[in-house]
Amino acid sequence: MSGRRLSRRAVIGAGAAAGAGLALPGGSAAAPGGRGRRRRIEADVVVVGAGFAGLTAALAVKRGGHSVAVLEARSRVGGRVAGHRLPSGEFSERGGTFVGPTQDRILAALDRFGIGTFPTYDEGSNVYVNGGQRMEFSDTGFTGSAPPDPLILPELITVVTRLDQMSTSVPVGAPWKAANAGEWDAETLAGWIAANSATERFRRLVPAATRPIFGADPGELSLLYVLFYIAASGNESNPGSFERNFNTRGGAQERRIEGGSQVLGQAMAAALGKRRIVKRSPVRRIVQRRDRVRAVSDRAVVVAKRAIVAIPPVLAGRIDYQPAMPAARDALTQRLAQGALTKVAASYPNPFWRARGLNGSTLSTDGLVNATFDDSPEDGRPGVVFGFVGGDSSRRFAALGPAARRRTVLAELAELLGPEAMHPTEFFYTQWPEQRWSRGAPVGIYPPGLMTTYGHAIREPVGRIHWAGTETSTYWNGYMDGAIRSGERAAAEVLEEL
Amino acid sequence: MSGRRLSRRAVIGAGAAAGAGLALPGGSAAAPGGRGRRRRIEADVVVVGAGFAGLTAALAVKRGGHSVAVLEARSRVGGRVAGHRLPSGEFSERGGTFVGPTQDRILAALDRFGIGTFPTYDEGSNVYVNGGQRMEFSDTGFTGSAPPDPLILPELITVVTRLDQMSTSVPVGAPWKAANAGEWDAETLAGWIAANSATERFRRLVPAATRPIFGADPGELSLLYVLFYIAASGNESNPGSFERNFNTRGGAQERRIEGGSQVLGQAMAAALGKRRIVKRSPVRRIVQRRDRVRAVSDRAVVVAKRAIVAIPPVLAGRIDYQPAMPAARDALTQRLAQGALTKVAASYPNPFWRARGLNGSTLSTDGLVNATFDDSPEDGRPGVVFGFVGGDSSRRFAALGPAARRRTVLAELAELLGPEAMHPTEFFYTQWPEQRWSRGAPVGIYPPGLMTTYGHAIREPVGRIHWAGTETSTYWNGYMDGAIRSGERAAAEVLEEL
Repeated sequence: MSGRRLSRRAVIGAGAAAGAGLALPGGSAAAPGGRGRRRRIEADVVVVGAGFAGLTAALAVKRGGHSVAVLEARSRVGGRVAGHRLPSGEFSERGGTFVGPTQDRILAALDRFGIGTFPTYDEGSNVYVNGGQRMEFSDTGFTGSAPPDPLILPELITVVTRLDQMSTSVPVGAPWKAANAGEWDAETLAGWIAANSATERFRRLVPAATRPIFGADPGELSLLYVLFYIAASGNESNPGSFERNFNTRGGAQERRIEGGSQVLGQAMAAALGKRRIVKRSPVRRIVQRRDRVRAVSDRAVVVAKRAIVAIPPVLAGRIDYQPAMPAARDALTQRLAQGALTKVAASYPNPFWRARGLNGSTLSTDGLVNATFDDSPEDGRPGVVFGFVGGDSSRRFAALGPAARRRTVLAELAELLGPEAMHPTEFFYTQWPEQRWSRGAPVGIYPPGLMTTYGHAIREPVGRIHWAGTETSTYWNGYMDGAIRSGERAAAEVLEEL
Repeated sequence: MSGRRLSRRAVIGAGAAAGAGLALPGGSAAAPGGRGRRRRIEADVVVVGAGFAGLTAALAVKRGGHSVAVLEARSRVGGRVAGHRLPSGEFSERGGTFVGPTQDRILAALDRFGIGTFPTYDEGSNVYVNGGQRMEFSDTGFTGSAPPDPLILPELITVVTRLDQMSTSVPVGAPWKAANAGEWDAETLAGWIAANSATERFRRLVPAATRPIFGADPGELSLLYVLFYIAASGNESNPGSFERNFNTRGGAQERRIEGGSQVLGQAMAAALGKRRIVKRSPVRRIVQRRDRVRAVSDRAVVVAKRAIVAIPPVLAGRIDYQPAMPAARDALTQRLAQGALTKVAASYPNPFWRARGLNGSTLSTDGLVNATFDDSPEDGRPGVVFGFVGGDSSRRFAALGPAARRRTVLAELAELLGPEAMHPTEFFYTQWPEQRWSRGAPVGIYPPGLMTTYGHAIREPVGRIHWAGTETSTYWNGYMDGAIRSGERAAAEVLEEL
């Protein structure tokens, strides 16, 4: 079939057998009834969301010697990380994919579970298309994965250098305290680019970068937020840079996870014990009392000492809190929307682009697919390429019918990688804005005026409720590494209080 | 006491006796039980929210000969319109207050219910403070309620004229289709002002205007949205203008409603019949089936043919829809946040400012209170003045303790109106962002990048669900008149389908 969307059923197995030492009463089977007939669980900590952040937090609580229960809306773990099983049995990535240098926490987690990584295929040339002109280039040059387009090179270098330089004054723990925070938060990236660029050809490149990175166009993004995002793409000893967000070689797309990123979520869930996770059970209400917190979900009610809410801020804002959230926290969740990202993918018997001297990495200003990467299994069989369709491209894609989606994307892949692209074994895509329990990807994005007003509420605990999720991370915000970091930080807050 | 916040209990009576001809089974008393023990109601139409939009829609459905049930989260009707009872028994306004020319639909509604209006007190001078300098001026001049400050007058005229002129190219029914929509939606009002103004003195005036009007600072607002708002401040035969938003004389603040704006909501509720309104019953879930829609609230479940959701978009986004909302509608509700508006008020034995030759209307760039109006009853006893504390001012106000709130506001009122302001009979305020079932005021505000991407979803029906609320109005969006218009329009959509 021409386009298959992510099924509401699990695409990922249910994890390994339950771990030992469970402290949860109530039996191992979730109650079959709907709302009003809910399993009752007591635990020291309730975690909302079994994405990488929630699973990390739950494991840390367990390791700290406390009981924990995880409530998950979906029928699978992993959140914005999900695999798609190829006919060959291998997995392609529908969501979070890559890891790279300075992403210490996810690399440590992979190590702990014995999960290997392998380099993103990077032999041969990148492809770059701008305004109908196509060129091939090597990303071993000083521009990395950014194109050394002679017509815009001075501009590109000036702008990236300036953004990097400005980002050094943005403290990742409190970007609203940057000396120029007020000024930078009152304008969009588009506005700043318009005032700091010379050619339309360069300006076309900017959305081609922001759509894959943020799922947004430059006019949706606060300049301050973009600078924060750059600053956050590093760790305590390596300041972030725009290039590290963007690059494969030495950057955030450097390596992939063996078996697919999903295996880390599965491993964490297995280590936690499957009985600790209640799936298909969205949390509807969280009630705080003087000495406890109660999380009411469709299939279970958990009474706990502390809660860690590890879901995107906008979805966290849709929970009914009693008492209601403070105004600043509520206002933040009213404004911090998820980006619009669609991931398109096609599989082929072989990665035909390699034979053409291409590595599968492309950047285009022209079509719906603004960037692609080689997503083939390590052995190169089958050949898989995926493309980011973000921001306005994602919205235009959504407006097309199924046949036009396939036709348009394959024609663009053919233009980028070669005519063989027109005849895939399978074509599939994931529209993250349609996903009920994500409602967008890759990350919550800040419009102008948000970070300096309500940004401080992103991870301030509210009574017994603590916040996790990649949006709460000071480093690698928006990435899988940020999710892991946030889970570790939230668990540390809670362990301090237990 | 120094500061009294709006009680969660009703400040408004429960309306008149039930109307005749009720079609609702289930008895007149709401079931006392909590969730899971809900009254079951069948009606042709279910309306979510008993603000001016919802009540207008419900009345129109009833007049069309169909049965209707209204579900309201609060213990009162009126939504963002609420009165505060003064010790004298008169009412002061906590929310929506004024009506003015071209606001035809609310004026017609007032007429229908025999509710009178009276002129906002406008004899004497306005007060204007900028950078510590205070001046008094008459609003009968050509600048209206805007100050004829000689130091910035050319700038003021140029900017307002340009904004008005630009707004004429914005179609109120589809602002995203304006010729320059993309460009204007990619920048903030702050960015545009920075590029189109000469002096800091003038630029200080801009937030003093946007805070009362939008509950937001210029850096939070899309330029396109501001232009739409200007265009919308009129009717089919009178194009909008910035001045009409801002002015008392001939503008949106021209008249007040006898007995307080709340009486219109009470009258509509009484005409509807109190048995048709279920209060204290927030809607949690709306389930659509092929031939019906079911709205599940805390105290009642309504099964109907059509639903009209007449609450702020962000709160509408927090309802659990089955099936889930389309991506564009969901994305809109993720981004269309409510402004931050606090209304402060003080009452005095007499309106002492009048004796000083002041009309009570002030505009200040300097403090928390950026604009005030005389809110005294028609006979001037007692004297009441209220102030708008919006955007950053609202956030700074929220950060103060109760004593500092009172002290700061009264000192500012004294500076504006005279030292008598320091000794009120009563000081009170309403922080709309704290109000659980509004979560901000006066209106949902568009950040850059929203109107051109998801703006079209603001009133597109989704199956059997129709949308009302002032945010959905093409004229007087953000005002009581817009709420009434939206209710009429949504009811017409539904009546067409029944």
